[in-house]
Amino acid sequence: MSYERANIREMTGYASGEQPAQPDIIKLNTNENPYPATAAVAEALRNCRVEDLRRYPSPLADRFRRTAAEYHQLEIDNIIPTNGGDELLRLVITTFANAGDTLAIAEPSYSLYPVLADIQGCKTARIMLGEDWSNPEDFADQANRAGARIAFVVNPHAPSGHLNSSAELSRIAENFSGVLVIDEAYVDFIDPELRYDAVELTRKFDNVLVLRTMSKGYSLAGLRFAYGIGAQSLLAPMLYKTRDSYNTDYISQTLATAALQDRAAAALNWAKVRAERLRLHRALSEMGFYCGNSQSNFILAQIPQHADALAGAERHALSLYQQLKSKGILIRYFDQPRLRDKLRITVGTPDQNTQLLLALRQSLQPSTD
Amino acid sequence: MSYERANIREMTGYASGEQPAQPDIIKLNTNENPYPATAAVAEALRNCRVEDLRRYPSPLADRFRRTAAEYHQLEIDNIIPTNGGDELLRLVITTFANAGDTLAIAEPSYSLYPVLADIQGCKTARIMLGEDWSNPEDFADQANRAGARIAFVVNPHAPSGHLNSSAELSRIAENFSGVLVIDEAYVDFIDPELRYDAVELTRKFDNVLVLRTMSKGYSLAGLRFAYGIGAQSLLAPMLYKTRDSYNTDYISQTLATAALQDRAAAALNWAKVRAERLRLHRALSEMGFYCGNSQSNFILAQIPQHADALAGAERHALSLYQQLKSKGILIRYFDQPRLRDKLRITVGTPDQNTQLLLALRQSLQPSTD
Repeated sequence: MSYERANIREMTGYASGEQPAQPDIIKLNTNENPYPATAAVAEALRNCRVEDLRRYPSPLADRFRRTAAEYHQLEIDNIIPTNGGDELLRLVITTFANAGDTLAIAEPSYSLYPVLADIQGCKTARIMLGEDWSNPEDFADQANRAGARIAFVVNPHAPSGHLNSSAELSRIAENFSGVLVIDEAYVDFIDPELRYDAVELTRKFDNVLVLRTMSKGYSLAGLRFAYGIGAQSLLAPMLYKTRDSYNTDYISQTLATAALQDRAAAALNWAKVRAERLRLHRALSEMGFYCGNSQSNFILAQIPQHADALAGAERHALSLYQQLKSKGILIRYFDQPRLRDKLRITVGTPDQNTQLLLALRQSLQPSTD
Repeated sequence: MSYERANIREMTGYASGEQPAQPDIIKLNTNENPYPATAAVAEALRNCRVEDLRRYPSPLADRFRRTAAEYHQLEIDNIIPTNGGDELLRLVITTFANAGDTLAIAEPSYSLYPVLADIQGCKTARIMLGEDWSNPEDFADQANRAGARIAFVVNPHAPSGHLNSSAELSRIAENFSGVLVIDEAYVDFIDPELRYDAVELTRKFDNVLVLRTMSKGYSLAGLRFAYGIGAQSLLAPMLYKTRDSYNTDYISQTLATAALQDRAAAALNWAKVRAERLRLHRALSEMGFYCGNSQSNFILAQIPQHADALAGAERHALSLYQQLKSKGILIRYFDQPRLRDKLRITVGTPDQNTQLLLALRQSLQPSTD
């Protein structure tokens, strides 16, 4: 017999990127940081003892919250720690949207959003992004017309890396009647000269939730620690009601705190990733791929189209993905509209990127059979 | 403006036991194991490197699942790993109960159950336990009549420590039309001679979910790792649809695996706890408290009533709790029906228990003013 709710029975679960066990694979498919966490984080890990694990952890990760509040010049009640960004996304939905309500989702973006909507029994309104992956000017109007309780944007955008300015996001926040989630999973890789800052929006608007994660910029994807930033009134129901009572563990709290305190050292890695992003962008462009300006740690490379033959470009993209995989290089191919003629490539170490470019060049060379 | 759903606005969050920061307090209020995790777990922690955290963890904690499946002589698809037991309890509700559905809850028991019901917008049917805290014989009938989709029992029962036999649970599983959750948070402290085994029920019934946690028996409350055991058809929607995609982290997977493999060493601690449980039980009984037979790592001690003066006993219980607290000894007082004249005391180390008994004796002595 089957006991699950009807909407669970009918839905399809989230398919995460491949996580191969082989250590020798060049893994450029799920946007991990190519460099490990900093020495201060390693030291914090060495100082953890099983004796520290005997008792329950701080329910709200207070030390981490104080550190994050200081960093963002906010109060601790403007910070909510979560077991990875996925937990925060789920919490937002279970806290602010009833079954049957509508969620507005920038399309394309993180494919987990519609899965979480399905779990809660919510409908989705897809808001089509522009040619350059920017949010449409009437984003808030579209979301309001759909009656959306929550709107999700990821900035820098995934899978393109396009950055919406905080002024554009401010306009959406001001005009949207629901909760605006700005998923900043990749924020650490933005050029500092751009002076992008969406956290300031949480001071002005009580409906803005900014998501930050330690997974990418801080090289701690395996640790599962993220946090949300927002008005106290917005976070309170999640902090004190809907969150699992001990949702983050002692070790992740300790390491996340150390990582945030040592962010100057992490920033050296972000600079290295940006330098390699530029090199990859140039090399891929020279090879004929079209790549927009990415402010993330990945590049979305569009296959050159000959005589507008989209189907051919799509076949070519899939074939390139498969050829690279057979050579032990994993990148991401999305079988969905607007993305089938593109490849998403995570920026790796200089050596990994060189090997990727070499393999791509070999695959692109006309066969000499 | 307030954005949360109406049921969230109206509900009250879960109040966890106090987690004081002072290290010198004698903490006997939240049922932690008085002994730290074993040497093998400590070694597994020492071997964790920040390099291991750069990538995403195994989404389903496959190594842990293989270890647990082998231990329970089941398949890996009979095991679901979760971020503490709370996550599993929440997952059960979001997977199997729609808003408006009813959950059957043994009363009194873990006060988180009704909070999770509130979050999902579910109603609760409280099933009153007998005088000795046993499940009523018509438990399944009561749950069925209420139309319950899920029923929660904790076994050994909390806060009393009473053990229901697996035969009794089998009868409930057979007659109940929904999902029966058997929360075995304290199972490791049961006298081995009793040969209690509810895991066998998951082989016979497709509606039984057994919850196990590493928090108590394995001294890893700070780590947040638990797992569910059940039929493949029961677990599949949680494993592949409703669970957060990376719900447990690399370090907790590694340490939980090591702990389960080293359970023979952990069992030495369980034996010590049982010996102290017996000593505490005897000493408390001699002091006039009534204590039922506890198969957990805590004892529920009822204040002696003089001439059936319940109100007096309740005042006395609260006062004893406060007096102990002022002496740096934290135990648990529940301000709810049937429990106000009782104190729940976690079994500590021999020295902690001796200090507790001494402080209680002092408090019970007639004042000589």
